[in-house]
Amino acid sequence: MTPPQRLADTGEFGLLASILPTFPQGEAVLLGPGDDAAVLDLAGHVVVCTDVLVEGVHFRADWSTAHDVGRKAVAVNAADVAAMGACTVAVVVGLAAPADTPVAWLTELTAGLRAESATVGCSVVGGDTVAGPVVTVAVTAVGTLLGAPVTRAGARPGDVVAVCGRLGYAAAGLAVLRRGFRSPRALVDVHRCPLPPYADGPRAAAASATSMIDVSDGLLADLGHVAEASGVHITVDGGRLDVPEELRAMARGLGADPRSWVLAGGEDHALAATFPPGTPPPDGFVPIGEVGEGSGVSVSGWDDLDVATGYEHFSG
Amino acid sequence: MTPPQRLADTGEFGLLASILPTFPQGEAVLLGPGDDAAVLDLAGHVVVCTDVLVEGVHFRADWSTAHDVGRKAVAVNAADVAAMGACTVAVVVGLAAPADTPVAWLTELTAGLRAESATVGCSVVGGDTVAGPVVTVAVTAVGTLLGAPVTRAGARPGDVVAVCGRLGYAAAGLAVLRRGFRSPRALVDVHRCPLPPYADGPRAAAASATSMIDVSDGLLADLGHVAEASGVHITVDGGRLDVPEELRAMARGLGADPRSWVLAGGEDHALAATFPPGTPPPDGFVPIGEVGEGSGVSVSGWDDLDVATGYEHFSG
Repeated sequence: MTPPQRLADTGEFGLLASILPTFPQGEAVLLGPGDDAAVLDLAGHVVVCTDVLVEGVHFRADWSTAHDVGRKAVAVNAADVAAMGACTVAVVVGLAAPADTPVAWLTELTAGLRAESATVGCSVVGGDTVAGPVVTVAVTAVGTLLGAPVTRAGARPGDVVAVCGRLGYAAAGLAVLRRGFRSPRALVDVHRCPLPPYADGPRAAAASATSMIDVSDGLLADLGHVAEASGVHITVDGGRLDVPEELRAMARGLGADPRSWVLAGGEDHALAATFPPGTPPPDGFVPIGEVGEGSGVSVSGWDDLDVATGYEHFSG
Repeated sequence: MTPPQRLADTGEFGLLASILPTFPQGEAVLLGPGDDAAVLDLAGHVVVCTDVLVEGVHFRADWSTAHDVGRKAVAVNAADVAAMGACTVAVVVGLAAPADTPVAWLTELTAGLRAESATVGCSVVGGDTVAGPVVTVAVTAVGTLLGAPVTRAGARPGDVVAVCGRLGYAAAGLAVLRRGFRSPRALVDVHRCPLPPYADGPRAAAASATSMIDVSDGLLADLGHVAEASGVHITVDGGRLDVPEELRAMARGLGADPRSWVLAGGEDHALAATFPPGTPPPDGFVPIGEVGEGSGVSVSGWDDLDVATGYEHFSG
């Protein structure tokens, strides 16, 4: 039997250089993969951000397929772009991987990059493959912004706080995987790859959102970033937060409190935004609280609950 | 004695999030570090590329300071942007590092990012710090291009091939370090951080360059990329290549052939470009050969020399 082809067999020039040119390129791409750099024709301002996923830290190869990892690497960045009120046009991919990584795994990874890019509506315009001791995927997203950016710093007392997208699913999915289970898929899949509401970012911007953030560290932690940047206090009304029956049922099974997943679970990549008083948030955004004078974040209505306020990768 | 502060002590939010906002931001930066993404106001088309540096593969912590690594991570990307005929405006930095990495090392790394960005004339507009088993620095550069991109595919028979910048220094420096020496600095320093002629890329574009590439894999390998993309043959005239006395002297000491460093040494990040017949290359570009019909690259005048044609990271 022929042993499976390893990355070392393809040579550095081979991997992304051979795969990326087969990816579809959007109209804004004047020059795609294969040269020293890609060239884009963008209207408006240019939005750029980067996020790194490391095997064993952000994903486990036994919990997530290579396809999941590729999708997630694009998703987390495109969610950041959406949180500025912008649309992702292109991504570039930096990939470090051990020389004995099966080429099949890496091919699946690139298929995931391609699939999520299709969902986002962006092109994969470049990449770099290098050797490294663990799989590390560094994606940078470039987006276009037609209006003013919606930052974390624009929330004002009186504004309504609203959320679009799932909260708590990724944390619940991670809890399930940690117990050795592989289902329910509705939870586990969101840990493997979030489902950010990409189009709702620009929609919130058009609806006069005063601030917006991608919920990656947990709702309270990320609203804390908004409160700090804006110099305001944010109150979350527990009674208005949706705690879906899927989370409740799983929490009963695991002896957990599903509300802590909703408030502090990271990596769902929902969007949290603030809107001026009297301005109805666009469809898809659910009001969950309000902005006041002061600093920090508090939760009303769930006084019996004690939750941690964020997710940190470096735990020692 | 207080033990030195480790990355784990600062928390993920701490490192780049606290340092990057202190970096100077250029006029084109509408929104710098600290939000979900940065926002740029760019004229012309947008150029984007990414390169990843991994400890033990692209640098050794005992050979290169953290400052060197930070500089190099910016330099290799800005050189790619220059090779399109464009100017780098901004970079974002993805950083994976072990939790016990001394904060002082990482602070020096960011100082190097800042120093080379000042040399390039760009801003560091964002970043992501995560845990990982070895230091991995993934920089993405975003540039602006006023004319048409100068790709690898535009060389035509009759064109003159010219080079701007050093060749062979980084390879000679690496050979020196591998023997356990730390000098001459003129060679070793170029391995630690190249000195790409950033401004000469746009200058070559303005002087009607038909193709251009950043010499990162070695002159012959990179001209091979141009030959392949353009569907031409390239002849390099050995007699016109500069083999500086610094390289000759070191080669005598190491029993090496300095011409192989010049032809096949990677990581100098010089610029190689082609110009139409009768068009004098701009100052700083030295004619070294010509473009003809056919395929591949050959060297004339150095028939006694047998060189490898490129540098590969994945060696098994």
